[in-house]
Amino acid sequence: MHKYNTNLDRCAANFQALTPIRFLNRSAEVFPNRTAVIYKERRFTWAEYASRCYKLGKALISAGVERGDTVAIIAPNVPAMVEAQFGVPLSGGVLNCINIRLDAAAIAFILEHSETKVMLVDQQFAKVAREAIAMTGMQIKVIDIADPDAGCSELIGEIEYEAFVAGANDEVDLRYPEDEWDAIALNYTSGTTGNPKGVVYHHRGAYLNALGQIISAELTGRVPVYLWTLPLFHCNGWCYAWSLAAVGGTHVCLRKVAAEDIYTAIEKHEVTHFCCAPTVLSFLINGKPASWQTPDQPIKVVCAGASPPVAILQQIVEMGFSVLHVYGMTEMHGITTLCQVQESWNDLNFADRMVHLGRQGVRTVVTDEMVVCTPQTYDPVPNDGKTLGEVMFRGNLGMKGYLKNAAATQEAFADGWYHTGDLAVVHENGYIEIKDRSKDIIISGGENVSSLELEDVLYTHPAVMGVAVVAVPDEKWGEVPCALIELKPEYQGQVTETEVTQFCRTKLAGFKVPRHIVFEPLTRTATGKLQKFKLRAHAAEVITARKAQIKESV
Amino acid sequence: MHKYNTNLDRCAANFQALTPIRFLNRSAEVFPNRTAVIYKERRFTWAEYASRCYKLGKALISAGVERGDTVAIIAPNVPAMVEAQFGVPLSGGVLNCINIRLDAAAIAFILEHSETKVMLVDQQFAKVAREAIAMTGMQIKVIDIADPDAGCSELIGEIEYEAFVAGANDEVDLRYPEDEWDAIALNYTSGTTGNPKGVVYHHRGAYLNALGQIISAELTGRVPVYLWTLPLFHCNGWCYAWSLAAVGGTHVCLRKVAAEDIYTAIEKHEVTHFCCAPTVLSFLINGKPASWQTPDQPIKVVCAGASPPVAILQQIVEMGFSVLHVYGMTEMHGITTLCQVQESWNDLNFADRMVHLGRQGVRTVVTDEMVVCTPQTYDPVPNDGKTLGEVMFRGNLGMKGYLKNAAATQEAFADGWYHTGDLAVVHENGYIEIKDRSKDIIISGGENVSSLELEDVLYTHPAVMGVAVVAVPDEKWGEVPCALIELKPEYQGQVTETEVTQFCRTKLAGFKVPRHIVFEPLTRTATGKLQKFKLRAHAAEVITARKAQIKESV
Repeated sequence: MHKYNTNLDRCAANFQALTPIRFLNRSAEVFPNRTAVIYKERRFTWAEYASRCYKLGKALISAGVERGDTVAIIAPNVPAMVEAQFGVPLSGGVLNCINIRLDAAAIAFILEHSETKVMLVDQQFAKVAREAIAMTGMQIKVIDIADPDAGCSELIGEIEYEAFVAGANDEVDLRYPEDEWDAIALNYTSGTTGNPKGVVYHHRGAYLNALGQIISAELTGRVPVYLWTLPLFHCNGWCYAWSLAAVGGTHVCLRKVAAEDIYTAIEKHEVTHFCCAPTVLSFLINGKPASWQTPDQPIKVVCAGASPPVAILQQIVEMGFSVLHVYGMTEMHGITTLCQVQESWNDLNFADRMVHLGRQGVRTVVTDEMVVCTPQTYDPVPNDGKTLGEVMFRGNLGMKGYLKNAAATQEAFADGWYHTGDLAVVHENGYIEIKDRSKDIIISGGENVSSLELEDVLYTHPAVMGVAVVAVPDEKWGEVPCALIELKPEYQGQVTETEVTQFCRTKLAGFKVPRHIVFEPLTRTATGKLQKFKLRAHAAEVITARKAQIKESV
Repeated sequence: MHKYNTNLDRCAANFQALTPIRFLNRSAEVFPNRTAVIYKERRFTWAEYASRCYKLGKALISAGVERGDTVAIIAPNVPAMVEAQFGVPLSGGVLNCINIRLDAAAIAFILEHSETKVMLVDQQFAKVAREAIAMTGMQIKVIDIADPDAGCSELIGEIEYEAFVAGANDEVDLRYPEDEWDAIALNYTSGTTGNPKGVVYHHRGAYLNALGQIISAELTGRVPVYLWTLPLFHCNGWCYAWSLAAVGGTHVCLRKVAAEDIYTAIEKHEVTHFCCAPTVLSFLINGKPASWQTPDQPIKVVCAGASPPVAILQQIVEMGFSVLHVYGMTEMHGITTLCQVQESWNDLNFADRMVHLGRQGVRTVVTDEMVVCTPQTYDPVPNDGKTLGEVMFRGNLGMKGYLKNAAATQEAFADGWYHTGDLAVVHENGYIEIKDRSKDIIISGGENVSSLELEDVLYTHPAVMGVAVVAVPDEKWGEVPCALIELKPEYQGQVTETEVTQFCRTKLAGFKVPRHIVFEPLTRTATGKLQKFKLRAHAAEVITARKAQIKESV
């Protein structure tokens, strides 16, 4: 390869660190007057938005942020949050978006572990942030994000966000990454076991995933008007703030993810795209306004998390939304697979099409390699739609690793594959379908029972609004499935456990029928996820108490 | 930055060399039954196409190709050419697509300079290839691409392409790049001065431009059916073979770029996109079949080269094509700017909209930096639509450099910018408009005259089919503009030089009016370009002869 490697080196003219933050400069130049951000009555053009991001970066530098310092933010999807996606990296800082549902102790852990220097705090979270900072005893510079809609007027910091940004010194030079492997963001996992882990994102992965999502979600053609239903603290909103900068789309901010607010935004701003967990689809179906009219062009919903139940998919599609089901994880910069629609599905009946649409599918264009395999041998499972294997990825979407946790990083990246811990089957067409988390599978009498399969069946029951199936200990079978069911308001007290069990018997093999049914509201995380490990512990308590009661009465 | 750089290194799980050739694997998996390639009555699915590319790669390895060996191909846009875009890099070879219009001496120069080991020769070019190889005296393994439509039955090599591919040993391991900076292709410039230069492409740039073109040309949404009007030997078809693999589009091959063949393909295969030089637009307008019906959805034409004359743009748009004007060069992996359509243009009248649409516009999403500046100082010109500056780029689309030509590489990349040699103005909205090649500007009596401006005016004359304006020496003015005009067949002998001059006087300042008019057919390059340096020499001869004749008759 001599001749092709001689006097043909990288230089400024042919090599630049990949980074999504340069997309901002381009949209400010190309679409200066196009609307970039909408929040209530406020509107910023791309020129204004870019200017605000630059000012935030400069102000942070003046406030003492050095390359590689952590800058945290706790806020819903308001303009400051959208601006932080660029402003913080432009200061050389690493952006840590904190989950707004966390308690003070969990936030304190994150602030300490990440060695946060500066924290932006939306007033809605002033109290919990104040408590968390007090617990750490650290000197953190706090910038308040004031908003009359925050429901709280407390100010805990040194300066308000608008004043901080307005006071930026234009003479300060912004900082672009010196290397595309530099950290751009830090996202803590929800910590299903032990303390949360800090996932470090790199500029290269963020850039590539931002481009990949444009292709997956078809953000070209019409100018995307993107509604921020997906929290930005979740994998930096799957990198979509960066994608939108690459195509000059419009961010529609949203403080609260409620059906009414979503429908208002769709109507008022002609929303074209949003991302969410399946739970949001349920909200939308149940909160559909009487005046709802099917839009001319379907509104594209990119939906991740557990496979949405077929019944829900069907209803939402009939309402004029098109659902792109995707799958991914914090450790892979967000989304790594999509359920790529095939032309041949058009020939299927509606229900069969919905079955296809609910699968996690295939890797995205920028997901280099995926395998569903036996973890010990890495042998791929057959495309039989039956054999469970662990989903693994490798390629440029992999995180840098877990911050200050080499052991966890090594475990996650064992043998050069990122181990998701998710179990899937591969269908004949090569599409994967997640069946369970490794730890969520229910092993009853030696048989594997998929909690997702049971949930899918239960969602077809008209009274069911939400459901989680978990394993509870059983003397005879080892584990048995227990269904925690949230009923629709109008069905409260109108349906019995026996009825639900009978319903399941008509649809499931006997060993799969939930042995226990509990009617109660379901606790969800900020991103609408059910934390199975918590629900499992809770269900075990409930069932133990029930058994004790039965014994007593006997 | 210590904590963010400690135990957070690259590994197989989070880093992979960027390369477009992995897109092939993905489309073979995701769209196995979708049509990948159409050529006359032949059709290959993505599974078949990928299999053929793999076999080509394996057969080349068995034939002795080592990493970094040059594998040349001379062929029109037939299946073997489309397959070579993947098969050659998969062998570790560097793909050199040779311009089919070159003569034997020019081809011999390229074969020697690139140290070609293997050459694929379409029968149409058997004679010129045989001569070229004989001139080099080199031992080159030749593979014939036989085709009854080639118009020549000569076979000059050791084996025919289909037999070569069919004979591949499946046990051979394909070669993926060891580093994304590895060479993937070699493209010789047309050599406006001296010998052609070999532009070396890298996997990183090819990958990024392939993704960028998907976004620019909107290859998502509907499955693209892409017609190969643009020669693949021109910047590897602007990287579109790789873009199509990323989205699973369909290649429609085309041996001959003629209006009839294009219209047949559009009708038969429902073509959605093609790329071309403005000349092709003229072909299409002049060759429009009587049965032409405006398609339901516009056919997207990505058009590069000189700005298409407004009159031509208007006609082609009215016929149901949408034109995306772009600009780029071999040294930047093809296309680096696009005329991004702005919503505000919808409010303009048709003619004004066409004026906007014909500009070279703004950098693409993956073009990191562009400037129009004074070459000596690099000061950007003002956005006044008047001041000429040189267009320069830098970023990941820059070539590795010129093969075995360090001096030319250094000159092209002086001060960390790629110097295009093209002169442009920047309009108020930041859109660039190429006015001329540095060397093509006409300096008449100290005034700069843009040959493009004159050509634009001349194209609005009903008799004009093609036009090139060049400088000819003049005793009084230094240089004066000379217009070489190709008349439409029906106007041959029907229009005089004086009439054309009068026409120009009504539209141009006096000093800009062409001092000389020559009616004759225009010689074009393989890519439909007018080579101004050749035309300039030719015009000078014609005018000198004319003057001599006038003197004689006097």
